[in-house]
Amino acid sequence: MKLTILINCPDQSGIIRSVTTFIHQQKGNVVYLDQHVDKQAGVFFMRLKSEFEQELDLYKFKEDFAKELATKFHMEWDAYTDVYRPKMAIFVSKYNHCLYDLLSRYNSGELSVDIPFILSNHKDLEYVAEQFGIPYFYIPVTKENKSEAEDKQLELLEQYGVDFIVLARYMQIVSPKVIDVFPQKIINIHHSFLPAFAGAKPYHAAFKRGVKIIGATSHYVTENLDAGPIIEQDVTTVSHTHSVKDFIAKGRDLERIVLSRAVQLHVARKTMVYNNKTVIFS
Amino acid sequence: MKLTILINCPDQSGIIRSVTTFIHQQKGNVVYLDQHVDKQAGVFFMRLKSEFEQELDLYKFKEDFAKELATKFHMEWDAYTDVYRPKMAIFVSKYNHCLYDLLSRYNSGELSVDIPFILSNHKDLEYVAEQFGIPYFYIPVTKENKSEAEDKQLELLEQYGVDFIVLARYMQIVSPKVIDVFPQKIINIHHSFLPAFAGAKPYHAAFKRGVKIIGATSHYVTENLDAGPIIEQDVTTVSHTHSVKDFIAKGRDLERIVLSRAVQLHVARKTMVYNNKTVIFS
Amino acid sequence: MKLTILINCPDQSGIIRSVTTFIHQQKGNVVYLDQHVDKQAGVFFMRLKSEFEQELDLYKFKEDFAKELATKFHMEWDAYTDVYRPKMAIFVSKYNHCLYDLLSRYNSGELSVDIPFILSNHKDLEYVAEQFGIPYFYIPVTKENKSEAEDKQLELLEQYGVDFIVLARYMQIVSPKVIDVFPQKIINIHHSFLPAFAGAKPYHAAFKRGVKIIGATSHYVTENLDAGPIIEQDVTTVSHTHSVKDFIAKGRDLERIVLSRAVQLHVARKTMVYNNKTVIFS
Amino acid sequence: MKLTILINCPDQSGIIRSVTTFIHQQKGNVVYLDQHVDKQAGVFFMRLKSEFEQELDLYKFKEDFAKELATKFHMEWDAYTDVYRPKMAIFVSKYNHCLYDLLSRYNSGELSVDIPFILSNHKDLEYVAEQFGIPYFYIPVTKENKSEAEDKQLELLEQYGVDFIVLARYMQIVSPKVIDVFPQKIINIHHSFLPAFAGAKPYHAAFKRGVKIIGATSHYVTENLDAGPIIEQDVTTVSHTHSVKDFIAKGRDLERIVLSRAVQLHVARKTMVYNNKTVIFS
Repeated sequence: MKLTILINCPDQSGIIRSVTTFIHQQKGNVVYLDQHVDKQAGVFFMRLKSEFEQELDLYKFKEDFAKELATKFHMEWDAYTDVYRPKMAIFVSKYNHCLYDLLSRYNSGELSVDIPFILSNHKDLEYVAEQFGIPYFYIPVTKENKSEAEDKQLELLEQYGVDFIVLARYMQIVSPKVIDVFPQKIINIHHSFLPAFAGAKPYHAAFKRGVKIIGATSHYVTENLDAGPIIEQDVTTVSHTHSVKDFIAKGRDLERIVLSRAVQLHVARKTMVYNNKTVIFS
Repeated sequence: MKLTILINCPDQSGIIRSVTTFIHQQKGNVVYLDQHVDKQAGVFFMRLKSEFEQELDLYKFKEDFAKELATKFHMEWDAYTDVYRPKMAIFVSKYNHCLYDLLSRYNSGELSVDIPFILSNHKDLEYVAEQFGIPYFYIPVTKENKSEAEDKQLELLEQYGVDFIVLARYMQIVSPKVIDVFPQKIINIHHSFLPAFAGAKPYHAAFKRGVKIIGATSHYVTENLDAGPIIEQDVTTVSHTHSVKDFIAKGRDLERIVLSRAVQLHVARKTMVYNNKTVIFS
Repeated sequence: MKLTILINCPDQSGIIRSVTTFIHQQKGNVVYLDQHVDKQAGVFFMRLKSEFEQELDLYKFKEDFAKELATKFHMEWDAYTDVYRPKMAIFVSKYNHCLYDLLSRYNSGELSVDIPFILSNHKDLEYVAEQFGIPYFYIPVTKENKSEAEDKQLELLEQYGVDFIVLARYMQIVSPKVIDVFPQKIINIHHSFLPAFAGAKPYHAAFKRGVKIIGATSHYVTENLDAGPIIEQDVTTVSHTHSVKDFIAKGRDLERIVLSRAVQLHVARKTMVYNNKTVIFS
Repeated sequence: MKLTILINCPDQSGIIRSVTTFIHQQKGNVVYLDQHVDKQAGVFFMRLKSEFEQELDLYKFKEDFAKELATKFHMEWDAYTDVYRPKMAIFVSKYNHCLYDLLSRYNSGELSVDIPFILSNHKDLEYVAEQFGIPYFYIPVTKENKSEAEDKQLELLEQYGVDFIVLARYMQIVSPKVIDVFPQKIINIHHSFLPAFAGAKPYHAAFKRGVKIIGATSHYVTENLDAGPIIEQDVTTVSHTHSVKDFIAKGRDLERIVLSRAVQLHVARKTMVYNNKTVIFS
């Protein structure tokens, strides 16, 4: 059995030694350890993977860890076994490229999640959900019914025990009502190299500015639009020969890749958030 | 003898045919032709290279070209022989990496220009100029003497017949007084992926935002700070393990490369400006 | 109506002028022209797009073009209208990532082709074909029946009027029997940065060598294994932290992108082959 | 005072715990720890940085470390303080771009080394050495005098206490006589994406093959030509429009960057070699 522990706490001497000694006492073997210190903020981050030959009583382990280490070092922390497959809901609007990408990875076994449902404010992509045999919920969102629509979303999310949400070009602003229930658990793909071209129509803005490189950014959703902690970014070159339509077509490939990388990092418990930034372990 | 012609004009039928026929009548042979149409703006751009076996009377050629083609098609255009080496002034402040890069390329013969002088508002880099045997002018700039200092700059630029200026991390805002004399002839390197992080301290801002990619941008200087037509951009990945100091170090390599590429494109007459954007011919 | 003309011929003076004049006489308007001269080989390449307001008699146009230009300049050439959607067959084996990628692009309208069928030597991916409602032919290939199997393939290819074949990780060597019928019309994806790691198990070989970058290469299939004209390549970084399994996972994203780009270039008539190399127009 | 420790040993339980406990006992504080396990080879690698408030008796520290840990875990290891600046000799031939790049970084303080001398089999670059005030030794190498010439090289290397050698486009094969004295301490830059195009004239070979991406590779020199452990690689795109000369020009930028990155990694003690591959710590 494998256990992944994520820790952040005020930096001080002895954390690594104490944690590795604790794992050893629990008859575990550390197989991976990566740590990072944000010197400005004075914060220590660690991701540690250990193997246990005997069956581990996770509840007891966590209780002991809390008592012996977490309190002492003022840790924010969590521990995950590799047995549980997180439940990922996908929110979409009308574009199918990110949805197809995620579902084909899911179908290939690339993506170790369960997908309880796909949710949309449009009916357009129901056929894709059907192709892959996944429930599709159509909840239209208008200015008037937004709050009510989000209530329905939250109901579904709770009912299906969803762990995190992927906005695969959802094209709607998610309100604090939902964000607060899924803090650092909503992953968005924005079709620009943030912080450049935040907001609507980034490809049009990039074309107008005459940039030579366009990008895509995946980030955790926060209350500030397109301003949450960045998980992953990538770029591709463009030139004067490319129209806005070409930007959009090239961008689709970026969006697919950048979103799926971010989802993979999240699922692998390789991301930590601090000060609106991410630590991404390797 | 080789001749490079750059043209832009309202798009209409028959331009390529007319120009290639004209070159043929002048006993030239077209060895390269690249064209682009900005459909939104309705503008046609062309770069054409031709070889002439006999000696060409450039003055007569230009006169005929103007009479027979330029007026008819309402062209903005120019023609350059490959004999003339443009005169490039370099403005620097205290950082030496871009300066060293340009001078070593110049010394290797990579860069087909003459460098009449290096100019700075500080004495710090005089030793580099001396290493390469190039005149160095120290013109301090303060809030009070800025206008006067720019007069001195313009005097030197005129005296040495400078064709274009490279701001190799000059760290001073160039005023319209100088820009107007060198329109689309001042090349700046900005140490961010514009339009993200325009203005001062872009590496600090990028660090604060937690981006995963940083960049550098070379552009023609206009009156609006860091908003001129972009010639070249490039990026490199960063992570949470990098400090601001690391961003700056990684950025130096980007700045060197991006600036030198932009200078090469300008020298090779591969850049045209329209609507605050560039057409970069291959 | 739009017409794309691809030409290659021995380089000489007057080709551009003659062709653009011919288009003009046919009442066409040149909207794009890109040309390239391979100086070593003395060969001229051109891609030209023109618009015709009136309906064009393509047969007559081609006849005139052949008579007036092609013979005179010893051209290899062809002309394509934008009306016809080429028919693309996909050959697969057991991996589904490239297949999913192509089909989702096809479904989104990104890929302007018809897909008459998917063909495989295994039954594994029949379910994907069914998801997208495309015929799937299972033709097992063994050492013993290879020639016979290829006969069946050729029959299907002819019956469905297939224009070109995409080997989306087909994992079988295609013999000259098929290649000769589809010269420069079979596109393969090889999972390495060719010419490094040609042949079987390139990710394993790359891992063993300890490279820091892996790649994928799309090329036209010729009789020499993995040695045909390269259409497109891309790379991604790896490190000592990546296992062979990680190489394979990262490689899948490269394979998807590189293959789809190559297919797009082929469909857009932007590729020409000469001396076992490609000219790729922009 | 800071101490960097590099360790590799057969993988087993308890190494991290034992080492961090040892550092603690020596009144040090671990400020960075990165580890890697090569599962196939069963080897554990670690890089650890620690700070000591009091002055550290390095000799005593090493003696204790050897006695208490190194023997027990069968470690290959070394410890480096941040006080010592390693002595780097540069070998060149006729190309100046890598040399200029290294010297300008050295001059800017980017590169924390001393450069006791530059050595060449040609006189061509003596002027660059003079520009930077560094001794230049001219030792011509021919087939006949090679062994003798290498004796002279070894004499100089010993006399100046050189720690490692950078072959900045040296264009000569270094024989085992020299390699054996500087194992994993000679850094070469090869102008291709190894293992593609090993040996002479890689840009010509790349051009002939029609690749769409070219690269450069920095590696430790071993007896097998261009086959040593790879430290760093990078690539850039090319197209049919580029001649061999263009490949060479684009390649120069790659060579500069890739070599300097490799040198930086070596100087920062971030490289370890195992099974002809490198572990590169972040």
